[in-house]
Amino acid sequence: MTAIGENSVGLVETKVLRVVEADAPLLLECGKRLGPIDVAYETYGQLNEARDNAILVCHALSGSAHAAGVHRPDDAKPGWWEDMIGPGKGIDTDKYFVLCSNVLGGCSGTTGPSSVDPETGQPYGLRFPIITIADMVRVQKLLLDRLGIDHLLAVIGGSIGGMQVLQWSIAYPEMMDAAIPVATTTHLGAQSIAFDAVGRNAILADASFANGQYHGKSVPARGLAIARMIGHITYLSEEGMRQKFGRQLRSTEKYSYDFNSEFSVETYLDYQGQTFVDRFDANSYLYITKASDYFDLARDHGSLQQAFANAKARFLVVSFSSDWLFTPAQSEAIVDALVANGRDVSFCNIDSSYGHDAFLLENDTLGAFINCFLTATRRRNGVEVEGVCCPRHPRVPSRAEQAHRARVDYQLVESLIEPDATVLDVGCGDGELLARLRQDKRIEGRGIELEQDLVLNGVCKRLSIIQYDIERGLGSYADRSFDYAILSQTVQTIRDPERVLTELLRVGRQVVVSFPNFAHWRSRVQLMCRGKAPVTRQLPFGWHDTPNIHCLSLKDFDEFCGHLGATIERRVPLVKTRPSPVRLWPNLLAEQVIYVLRKD
Amino acid sequence: MTAIGENSVGLVETKVLRVVEADAPLLLECGKRLGPIDVAYETYGQLNEARDNAILVCHALSGSAHAAGVHRPDDAKPGWWEDMIGPGKGIDTDKYFVLCSNVLGGCSGTTGPSSVDPETGQPYGLRFPIITIADMVRVQKLLLDRLGIDHLLAVIGGSIGGMQVLQWSIAYPEMMDAAIPVATTTHLGAQSIAFDAVGRNAILADASFANGQYHGKSVPARGLAIARMIGHITYLSEEGMRQKFGRQLRSTEKYSYDFNSEFSVETYLDYQGQTFVDRFDANSYLYITKASDYFDLARDHGSLQQAFANAKARFLVVSFSSDWLFTPAQSEAIVDALVANGRDVSFCNIDSSYGHDAFLLENDTLGAFINCFLTATRRRNGVEVEGVCCPRHPRVPSRAEQAHRARVDYQLVESLIEPDATVLDVGCGDGELLARLRQDKRIEGRGIELEQDLVLNGVCKRLSIIQYDIERGLGSYADRSFDYAILSQTVQTIRDPERVLTELLRVGRQVVVSFPNFAHWRSRVQLMCRGKAPVTRQLPFGWHDTPNIHCLSLKDFDEFCGHLGATIERRVPLVKTRPSPVRLWPNLLAEQVIYVLRKD
Repeated sequence: MTAIGENSVGLVETKVLRVVEADAPLLLECGKRLGPIDVAYETYGQLNEARDNAILVCHALSGSAHAAGVHRPDDAKPGWWEDMIGPGKGIDTDKYFVLCSNVLGGCSGTTGPSSVDPETGQPYGLRFPIITIADMVRVQKLLLDRLGIDHLLAVIGGSIGGMQVLQWSIAYPEMMDAAIPVATTTHLGAQSIAFDAVGRNAILADASFANGQYHGKSVPARGLAIARMIGHITYLSEEGMRQKFGRQLRSTEKYSYDFNSEFSVETYLDYQGQTFVDRFDANSYLYITKASDYFDLARDHGSLQQAFANAKARFLVVSFSSDWLFTPAQSEAIVDALVANGRDVSFCNIDSSYGHDAFLLENDTLGAFINCFLTATRRRNGVEVEGVCCPRHPRVPSRAEQAHRARVDYQLVESLIEPDATVLDVGCGDGELLARLRQDKRIEGRGIELEQDLVLNGVCKRLSIIQYDIERGLGSYADRSFDYAILSQTVQTIRDPERVLTELLRVGRQVVVSFPNFAHWRSRVQLMCRGKAPVTRQLPFGWHDTPNIHCLSLKDFDEFCGHLGATIERRVPLVKTRPSPVRLWPNLLAEQVIYVLRKD
Repeated sequence: MTAIGENSVGLVETKVLRVVEADAPLLLECGKRLGPIDVAYETYGQLNEARDNAILVCHALSGSAHAAGVHRPDDAKPGWWEDMIGPGKGIDTDKYFVLCSNVLGGCSGTTGPSSVDPETGQPYGLRFPIITIADMVRVQKLLLDRLGIDHLLAVIGGSIGGMQVLQWSIAYPEMMDAAIPVATTTHLGAQSIAFDAVGRNAILADASFANGQYHGKSVPARGLAIARMIGHITYLSEEGMRQKFGRQLRSTEKYSYDFNSEFSVETYLDYQGQTFVDRFDANSYLYITKASDYFDLARDHGSLQQAFANAKARFLVVSFSSDWLFTPAQSEAIVDALVANGRDVSFCNIDSSYGHDAFLLENDTLGAFINCFLTATRRRNGVEVEGVCCPRHPRVPSRAEQAHRARVDYQLVESLIEPDATVLDVGCGDGELLARLRQDKRIEGRGIELEQDLVLNGVCKRLSIIQYDIERGLGSYADRSFDYAILSQTVQTIRDPERVLTELLRVGRQVVVSFPNFAHWRSRVQLMCRGKAPVTRQLPFGWHDTPNIHCLSLKDFDEFCGHLGATIERRVPLVKTRPSPVRLWPNLLAEQVIYVLRKD
């Protein structure tokens, strides 16, 4: 048996490079100096001639430099991100040169607390200085310097690896085109700090810990196992655990009435704890979790917005719906801070029941996003990229999409937009309008869309799409940050049009709104003569299953604009989607309408 | 300083009674026998002459018999539910005789694993048999027998105490009028079992544990503290921890760069762990958490519905919105099982950020619910109860309520309901209609309502109200379980009328539906002549801020009934709320309408 699967990078080797010499130790954030520092790393794929295809992958708490492939043909397990890194995979080693290094403080080849302290000739133990995420990133940068890599196409990582990605984007903004922080956060909340603290407590409480000087003796196995068990609970979601284990017993249908592990979830945790002890070092667990607790970009920079003020990369922020360790809301906070700085950011909250672990398990969806985003980034850089970046399955469009596709003719909206403008399309669907505007008017576009698959479509079109619910508002967008904000065929479907329109009028210099006219003569006649809720070409749904939860006419909207204090710059009533506007009795004859508004 | 606050029961004493003699040991669920068994208990208030005012309070994991008052005038802390039990409080000791006993396996006076094993003369330690929630309840029953209490007005408890309440309602259904399980569950899910298992692991891993024979030596303090810390994280909500601690540092603004506890949340957990060690026994922690893991009513009885098949009590089930240990969904499962059995159940999911701990902290709201429910239960028993049961603050009615109060005249609905019928009012508001129907038609009513305050109003009116969102459906209600299901002035506000109506037609032999007529001539004229979304007496909201997300007429609903396969038994078009039905052109002249439907 071999672990080399199809599309594996195959046999790989961990190399070690000294990046800090003993006589020139590195000044750490804690104020202490550390040297020498060795770094273990692996690479996959080839650096191209232009040297513009290098990707740095950052690992999480228990990872290592060994991200893909196997060390020996008979290895039982491949690298920790084997499903993501390889020929034709999410991070495609046929196209990219991928580098992954073990973090400072780790236990897989890079200098850490169980390395030998040159001063004592013994392992450091708790004499090892406290390290931070920023220290880890500085050491990675030193490694790249040594390897002669002065530019990165992207930095990618999940969880604590994602913290490193964020730190990279802030510390070395010029050095990278793209940043892909996955399932991460700019700071741990009280609950996550608490879990880490209890885990460390369990290690420190283990009688074998001996102040970290357990090397060559019995290791603090029970303490480390307990820490790992706690961690594992936080990596899975409640729903995922319920599906995977429920109340299933390990081997019998009867309770054993003793304190042995008998529920499947107990034996799972026992196993996770035990195997972790065999491959990981208790001291490194202490140091890396502490680095994670200390990570706090807002604290370092005054605010989260200031933290990203100088970031240059395109961002793809990814969270997972059931992740309760580093929650979608924490990823949204990253997105909000980037948006507030006017940065180029896409965001997807991938629907998953795997919890935090999803970043290692949702390979199809995450891989498609990463692959599309990397391809799009290269194309934006003017590089010709061949082939298809993501698997496109023909989908049956949802009813909301069908309604959406009854959007007013794009040509007409295009005619209202000035060239070279900046445009925010709220409820942008698959991004087709933005893509056309970019093509024909050279606009710089951003989109907001709720559905995951449509967000992927947009990202694939080199667009920057954020997966947000419009109803949550646009609070992070600066005043007048776009020349145009577009709300196409959506106002009648949202709960609180007043709030959304008010926000759009703040964010956009001009706001383009279109909707079906509820007072079209067919609707009037249907209600007047037949006494029924109108069903027309533009309002095709029955009263009980319509996504349109508001009925409004041109007159209603005129009054509403007055109520909002908005000036109507243009009002284009339409029959069908003919670009020729209705002139006579528009509120009677128009099937739909496009408004251009402004509020000074 | 004294801990005797206002309205305290004051000085109290823990008594101990032997309920099982050594020579007649109790056969436990695990198959082993245990004896002797002593039980520690306290009582507050007076048993009345009718002996019908006794309430049993069941404590949670770390509680004891000492639920209220103080043992000495200078006690620093009163009993664990001091805020709930006392004169004029939620459990009013002026009215009720309250009894609380330490659970079997505990460490506060009742026989447990640290009691002396008569066979060895040493503490039991791990020789103590595994106990279950059912065993605990049997011992409580034996105590009541000894005390000559043969009937309980109510059994009340939170968390593991709530499990005891559920077990009581099943094991001794005839003995109690009311059951109030708070923040509890019928079984632990995989995640909760996992947390318990890791906590026990920490205790068992402590070098001082010595197979439970640590008495007189050093106790397994670090292991027990770690278990308690893990527990405490699960008792708070993420939101609550964020509000209470955030990333606040204990004493300085700078990181200390060492492994001492420096975040406030760390020192909080240290403190909780440390003080717990001083007052609780590690062996008891093992046994009680194991009892909680084993608790599984569906397993014991074949299904959750069967578990409650013989329950007789009125239930008030209470959960807390941010409780992620025993979640609102788990309480809803209890409610669903009771509903499926046609039991008398009220349910409230109290809005709180305190997490699981809310059952000890949300005293005002929980106290009002308990007080009202107890009073209502006594009144249903025909007992005259004086005074006000809950504080009624005059509230400004919400917009949804205002719309609700435009309900069709109750007299009219009343005229459609046969006497002595069973009625389910979906979206029942404050329960006024049900209360009137009970008064005038002697109906047996049940209500569903989403807003917490309105649920309390209903409970206070001796009604059984479940706090559910109608949109989740009525899946737990049996077919034809009511003579009438009422949906009054609500169909136009729900997302999926088809699903809700289908369910109502399944659950009710007849369904009474009322709604405003969108095709009333005023609406028609407004749309026809003015070209605006109608605003009328019955449809008083503007297009953009209306709770009415569907527009329907009598004709629309007639067709819809055909679509649903429902027979229209009666259709009562109304002008204003006049009981005289419109005869001519009802779809034109009726402002609103009442339908009576049936589906055979």
